[in-house]
Amino acid sequence: MKIAVDAMGGDHAPDEIVRGALLYREKGGPSDLVLVGREDPIRKLLGAEIPPGITVRAAKDVVGMDEHPATALRRRADTSIGVATAMVKHGEADAVVSAGNTGATMAAALLVLGRIRGIDRPALCGMLPTTKGKPACLLDAGATMDADEHNILQFARMASRFMEKIHGIDRPSVGLINVGEEPEKGGRMQLAAHALLEGAEDLNFYGNIEGRDVTRGITDICVTDGFTGNVLAKGMEGVVDVFVEGIRRDIFGGPLGKVAGLIALGGIAKFRSRMDYDPYVSAPLLGVAGISVVTHGRARANMMRRAIEVAERAVSTRLLDALGEGVASAA
Amino acid sequence: MKIAVDAMGGDHAPDEIVRGALLYREKGGPSDLVLVGREDPIRKLLGAEIPPGITVRAAKDVVGMDEHPATALRRRADTSIGVATAMVKHGEADAVVSAGNTGATMAAALLVLGRIRGIDRPALCGMLPTTKGKPACLLDAGATMDADEHNILQFARMASRFMEKIHGIDRPSVGLINVGEEPEKGGRMQLAAHALLEGAEDLNFYGNIEGRDVTRGITDICVTDGFTGNVLAKGMEGVVDVFVEGIRRDIFGGPLGKVAGLIALGGIAKFRSRMDYDPYVSAPLLGVAGISVVTHGRARANMMRRAIEVAERAVSTRLLDALGEGVASAA
Repeated sequence: MKIAVDAMGGDHAPDEIVRGALLYREKGGPSDLVLVGREDPIRKLLGAEIPPGITVRAAKDVVGMDEHPATALRRRADTSIGVATAMVKHGEADAVVSAGNTGATMAAALLVLGRIRGIDRPALCGMLPTTKGKPACLLDAGATMDADEHNILQFARMASRFMEKIHGIDRPSVGLINVGEEPEKGGRMQLAAHALLEGAEDLNFYGNIEGRDVTRGITDICVTDGFTGNVLAKGMEGVVDVFVEGIRRDIFGGPLGKVAGLIALGGIAKFRSRMDYDPYVSAPLLGVAGISVVTHGRARANMMRRAIEVAERAVSTRLLDALGEGVASAA
Repeated sequence: MKIAVDAMGGDHAPDEIVRGALLYREKGGPSDLVLVGREDPIRKLLGAEIPPGITVRAAKDVVGMDEHPATALRRRADTSIGVATAMVKHGEADAVVSAGNTGATMAAALLVLGRIRGIDRPALCGMLPTTKGKPACLLDAGATMDADEHNILQFARMASRFMEKIHGIDRPSVGLINVGEEPEKGGRMQLAAHALLEGAEDLNFYGNIEGRDVTRGITDICVTDGFTGNVLAKGMEGVVDVFVEGIRRDIFGGPLGKVAGLIALGGIAKFRSRMDYDPYVSAPLLGVAGISVVTHGRARANMMRRAIEVAERAVSTRLLDALGEGVASAA
């Protein structure tokens, strides 16, 4: 198996991306990796002797984290994400992994790979830690605005296959994000989506869930339209930032706080490890005709290694076929 | 001025509600208060000698926190929120305040008081702490599903008057919640709302903001439809719960953690006070033809006292007139 890694994408690229690739191989990862990006810095990071199973593919350009993705991809043919995605299209790689601009990864996947036949709109998974100690899959986290109830049904089906294949969850439960638990809650779209989900016998539909149920891990999958999902995921991230900053500055910041921090080190580590989503934050874009794994822009080496593992599992479990068949046979 | 207080609404009713009313008066609050609810427990809590400025109005029933609001109100004529809201309708009180079932407060307001002429749909404010140390007004937090761009424009106008009158903010800034900052982001409704907000010269429109910008305090007002607002507010609350639990149990839970907690007491207090939204969490329902202030179900005495103060300010600053005039003259 060969996996193309966008070496230039993410806040800590290329350093942590290259380190992540090396880590993946050191830990015995079986896939060959192709690091795509600017040759000089990548080769410098790899050192004089490049370990076996790692090669470099030159791409001069990068799509910046704040750039308009589609425009950047159309204007510049030689971006790392564009080249890496094209490798999948041309059978030179089995999957692509990127910590870069999510919009660019998505745009590249849609432009270059296209959609899976029978799937109308793509969806982005946001994988979140929950108080139950297992991750929840929030989708769509921003791929499809104005999703209708039929899109939502397809999202739920795709996410079910994804959670089965990649996270080994049998009959993952699906919750429809809504403003209350009762079936009659929500707007027109939610009412229609509730009816469709309830009627889908191939799904393990739980019913409506509320915004706060996502972190409670009430269901394995939390499905909503891409607008709501994106706003919700970013809103929750904003609260995390507030607390992390508050814990760091207010609670453990002053001289006394520093002492308290030393004493509480074990507890802080415990909390951190419970919130650690490195192993599962990465997920393939669902609905595109190829494996394109998106990971967090903040990814460091370990998260990159895990993202490569997700790509590997998606290929080896034949996730793409399952997505196509699952949705087509149900329809 | 006379304010009706729903003594039976909220997780800590009637104890903390009655204590809040007493606190309001003790601190020199000028308004007369009418505690509405079951007479026996209320009178017991008030003690043998009821302080001047406080009276009791009997209402036998309560709408439970998990009851279907409209159904409960229609079936039982003698609920505390129903009676308290009717007092406003009949001029026996200038405002009503409740920590009870928000849906019931809203339903009572709409059924009994109706809407302000010219305002098509009501909106609920969610008042949130921000890292800037000032509150942000998130609306609509769940009153109106399927809001269209015209509703959004009215929400922005109502919230602007509210933030001016109640929180003394001059020309409050308005952000439209979206999936990115660029004007072309979002779904159909957001595109249309952006155009309307940008064209409204009476508003201080900032532009699009993202989910994480709410807690960053980028704008004074964060406007969205009631579905997104509700999911976002509850999602953020869910993350708060995760952190509060994690700080309590993981970090300061064990024997060493307890020692650390004692040493960090000052810092913990600092962080708490920065997150303390007692003073501003309460807000009137915007768009209904009477002052009906909603506060958090978790309200204790101090939050109730502050909620009564918000009601008092809404009446004394003639918020209702401003809402009606502001929206009508702009239209």
